Amino acid sequence: MDKKLIGSCIIGQSGGPTAVINASAYGVIKTALEAEEITKVYGAAHGIRGVLDDRLYVMDMEDPKELELLLHTPSSELGSCRYKIADPAKDDTDYKRILEIFKKYNVRYFFYNGGNDSMDTCNKISKYMQSVGYECRVMGVPKTIDNDLYGTDHCPGFASAAKFIATSCMEIDKDMHVYDKPMITVVEAMGRHAGWLTASAALATCFGGGPDLIYLPEVDFDMDKFIADVDRVHKEKGNVFIVVSEGIHYADGSFVSEAKTSATDGFGHAQLGGLAAMLASKLGEHTGIKVRGIELSLLQRCGAHIASATDVEETFNAGKVAVEKAIAGETDKMVAFERVMEDGKYSCKFVTVPLTLAANTEKKVPVEWINAEGNGLKKEFIDYVLPLVQGEVNVPKENSLPRYAKLKKILAE
Amino acid sequence: MDKKLIGSCIIGQSGGPTAVINASAYGVIKTALEAEEITKVYGAAHGIRGVLDDRLYVMDMEDPKELELLLHTPSSELGSCRYKIADPAKDDTDYKRILEIFKKYNVRYFFYNGGNDSMDTCNKISKYMQSVGYECRVMGVPKTIDNDLYGTDHCPGFASAAKFIATSCMEIDKDMHVYDKPMITVVEAMGRHAGWLTASAALATCFGGGPDLIYLPEVDFDMDKFIADVDRVHKEKGNVFIVVSEGIHYADGSFVSEAKTSATDGFGHAQLGGLAAMLASKLGEHTGIKVRGIELSLLQRCGAHIASATDVEETFNAGKVAVEKAIAGETDKMVAFERVMEDGKYSCKFVTVPLTLAANTEKKVPVEWINAEGNGLKKEFIDYVLPLVQGEVNVPKENSLPRYAKLKKILAE
Repeated sequence: MDKKLIGSCIIGQSGGPTAVINASAYGVIKTALEAEEITKVYGAAHGIRGVLDDRLYVMDMEDPKELELLLHTPSSELGSCRYKIADPAKDDTDYKRILEIFKKYNVRYFFYNGGNDSMDTCNKISKYMQSVGYECRVMGVPKTIDNDLYGTDHCPGFASAAKFIATSCMEIDKDMHVYDKPMITVVEAMGRHAGWLTASAALATCFGGGPDLIYLPEVDFDMDKFIADVDRVHKEKGNVFIVVSEGIHYADGSFVSEAKTSATDGFGHAQLGGLAAMLASKLGEHTGIKVRGIELSLLQRCGAHIASATDVEETFNAGKVAVEKAIAGETDKMVAFERVMEDGKYSCKFVTVPLTLAANTEKKVPVEWINAEGNGLKKEFIDYVLPLVQGEVNVPKENSLPRYAKLKKILAE
Repeated sequence: MDKKLIGSCIIGQSGGPTAVINASAYGVIKTALEAEEITKVYGAAHGIRGVLDDRLYVMDMEDPKELELLLHTPSSELGSCRYKIADPAKDDTDYKRILEIFKKYNVRYFFYNGGNDSMDTCNKISKYMQSVGYECRVMGVPKTIDNDLYGTDHCPGFASAAKFIATSCMEIDKDMHVYDKPMITVVEAMGRHAGWLTASAALATCFGGGPDLIYLPEVDFDMDKFIADVDRVHKEKGNVFIVVSEGIHYADGSFVSEAKTSATDGFGHAQLGGLAAMLASKLGEHTGIKVRGIELSLLQRCGAHIASATDVEETFNAGKVAVEKAIAGETDKMVAFERVMEDGKYSCKFVTVPLTLAANTEKKVPVEWINAEGNGLKKEFIDYVLPLVQGEVNVPKENSLPRYAKLKKILAE
């Protein structure tokens, strides 16, 4: 056990928001407020930008009841950023400034809540503080609907987005089968490089009704093969339900979404309506039947009303564990989830992995979980994702509409 | 009290599906199965097409537990159609066929569940049966997310779609305010001629966070005024959140969604991505800041997981009341909702209106409920819609995913 480290802490949020990222923030804030080693709890306004700009909210001055509402408030309540911090070997301006702020507020604990890039930021800050001999325990708290962080079985936020996608696909499936004329539906889910989210549409197919065809960025896309797949399902079943990842790409690496619309308007203008609209247009021309393109857009990442209770609980605990481990002496780590299966029952063990390992490494859907045709998922994926989407949340309501946290956000001086 | 009429009944569903249309079907089916006057309960496959094609499912042979799941199963489980029935004065082929089927199965009760067009179909069948002296009680059961049926305070299905839109807008509002750079979000809601659904986004603004600007088809759209509105909000607040109805149109009646994109690509090609994408593109060019277009698409009409409990209950009762009133002797009517406010407490009274009145008449958002600027709603609209979205449903689940009805659909012979 390391020596007791007394001082204040900062929690920052970064990258694209999720339905549950505030549950992690609440895990950090609540645990830190209760910890005797932590003298003050600051929330950085818009991630690392809030530190650089000396804009820190004093969490000690917030109403505990409002803070608790963070558990079910989507998006990043403290604000996020996409600020890319420099390599300290080339430019240490930002790091000097961060050190200055850390000294000003006696910050001895730094918690950063985000995805790959955020873990990189976290890692660089940690290494810099070590290099200048400023004692500060730095912990990364993972977050990303993309589920592509290395070193963790799954990522906070993924399961809630997966549950939104699976449920929406089950609803869309009911809707698209209503008429006595066949139609084709193309749904576009998020995931630029990893297909985890898109794959989760397979839950709908498995447990009710869902897509006939699913295309992930893990498999090179082939337009002729795609059209042949659609023709086959159309012939067999009439209706065709397709889910594609925004990140599907051809063998040469170019994104399908960036394809020119020469087939459509003859002038090669890029489509505005996104991938789903583009594929819908292409299939409409090819088949002559009604085609609908649906982009789930950011609804899939902010759908707190249908979050996975398992996700919310684990995500809260990720924040809690980060504080507990830091107080116990750990630093330079990211909290990670380890899957434990005992007698067929799932549970989640909280571990830590070195920040260096977590930063900038992407985890993709294993190719052996994708079917041979490259247009669907195998049972292995269902077994992986199903335990994560379990449990319903009970979002606090006023007037039968969500009641989200309203923080005072009083700036530290 | 009219004389007792003994015979079988048919329930048909028609038009675009909703999250709760099956609750009405269940109201009809359950009540009819329990009624001693009704000897057999048939569900028409794909609405009136199922009658014409002699494709009737025997509801008596279904498992009652599966039928009960209809309460929370979105879309039209019996199948829908958009078949336009002829004017019987010009062509009575279809009516003769319907009469033949009615006689074959001794159909003495006909319930038709749909919107304006469906009430027109229902009305024509009713009048024809009267004209040929075939005794059959015909009742319309209203349905439409568009909320535009005449003679009823509101329509089954509207409130659930309104709740989806309001909740989604609250979530989008959280998501779009996350970064420290301003952005513009344009959300497109359904409603070709009436703005009820789009207007319901005002609930989000009223009770949390929602759109700054709302444009309905009840007000002629002016692109210059629209851009000036956006500029003003952008200047005041940075972020701008806009919700538009798919049916907004210029003073000459032409839909904004049909506008050529000359400003965008210089060749006058119609946009594929819909109205939200088109307006987003226009605002992006004008302001130079990030703009996102989101089409709620059919998610808004099939979102059974977030249906209004008030809507589900009233919608079930609409079906139940239709059967009860028909058995009691009423015919040629549509069930309608009358709003009762006592001591500030809302309740719903079930009445009937003549089918002739209900058919093909559209009810729009009263202009006096829209603000003077034509870009927002007044308190009168909030007072109208708020009681309708109250209460949460508890959709039956398996594996934490919706468990929808699986009917056997055994055809009558």
